Amino acid sequence: MISETSLIDDAVGAFSTLPGIGKKSALRLVLHMLEQPPEYTDNFTQTLADLRAKIHPCKRCGNYTELEICHICSNLHRSEKLICVVESIRDLLAIEQTGHYRGTYHVLGGLISPLEGRGPGDLRIAHLLDRARTPETEELVMALSPTIEGDATTYYIAKQLSGADVKITQISRGVSFGGELEYTDELTLSRSIEGRISYTAYHQSTPDR
Amino acid sequence: MISETSLIDDAVGAFSTLPGIGKKSALRLVLHMLEQPPEYTDNFTQTLADLRAKIHPCKRCGNYTELEICHICSNLHRSEKLICVVESIRDLLAIEQTGHYRGTYHVLGGLISPLEGRGPGDLRIAHLLDRARTPETEELVMALSPTIEGDATTYYIAKQLSGADVKITQISRGVSFGGELEYTDELTLSRSIEGRISYTAYHQSTPDR
Repeated sequence: MISETSLIDDAVGAFSTLPGIGKKSALRLVLHMLEQPPEYTDNFTQTLADLRAKIHPCKRCGNYTELEICHICSNLHRSEKLICVVESIRDLLAIEQTGHYRGTYHVLGGLISPLEGRGPGDLRIAHLLDRARTPETEELVMALSPTIEGDATTYYIAKQLSGADVKITQISRGVSFGGELEYTDELTLSRSIEGRISYTAYHQSTPDR
Repeated sequence: MISETSLIDDAVGAFSTLPGIGKKSALRLVLHMLEQPPEYTDNFTQTLADLRAKIHPCKRCGNYTELEICHICSNLHRSEKLICVVESIRDLLAIEQTGHYRGTYHVLGGLISPLEGRGPGDLRIAHLLDRARTPETEELVMALSPTIEGDATTYYIAKQLSGADVKITQISRGVSFGGELEYTDELTLSRSIEGRISYTAYHQSTPDR
């Protein structure tokens, strides 16, 4: 109990359920809110209520949207031939931030994880397979985390599509750009040597598509 | 624009008006909110709306309360003889956190600052003078920041009460407990030498009252 005033404690509690906000920061936010005119809190809560009421997943790719189909899927300049498969909308936003990817997406909503009891049926995989089997789709770019779960998910999807006329690629793995070789972990370093690529081929390829 | 979805951008904007929350953290909070069931956002906004509607300053000391008089002023175990004068409720909470102060408070709501055009009339000073002049009050502990504004405010209040039967004290200033002398700023260090206190007297005093 920080204030002995239950309403303040409740508000501190509400803010501290948010990621990265501890009790101390939460109290700071609550006091800030109390120092502003009441309209500030009205606008704040109304904005969040609107957000939650009107935002839902895009029927095609799973990205957040206010419409039926999100702005990426409905953008005629984005190629439907290329589908980038990601675990979450956070990952989608991270790729969008690069500003280099011009295809569309498919958000799985998680990774296959037998340990956590999450199978293919719990993810948006069936819908991805449908999309991948349409004649428009030429390539799935698997952009999943380089973990056991990520690899298992990629493996499962690739296996399901083994007979289909669709190319399956995976984002490249290796040392980070600008990273110091000395501080790269051993696994990444040894894999990046195993998976070395032709210098000439790399510099002739077009990373932006 | 982070998401090209105006509702998400609005919510990111709302969170980033809070102190210490940048656009990136705000997006993280918004995505977290969207990942929870709608009831999460309902509870969150309701808690904040309740807070803002029901919390107001205590009529006596200026602390936040849901009642007319706050839990500190109405606590019979807190001495009304001693009033600790603070700039803000944040400072009051900081002193309460120590768990050692057993008197009451008076929140000024700011400091006198001619530069920022804030005079005694803009603060809860007249009310403090009334409280100080009642026979119950024996001592005002001035716990204001050791700045020009803090000192000016203490000076103004002390001057107004020059004829009154009330003792005016000021929290001690000097090197921090556990702080390294080497890293203490020159002003604090030189003042702490000027204002040195008798070792025997200090160790016989009772800091907890």
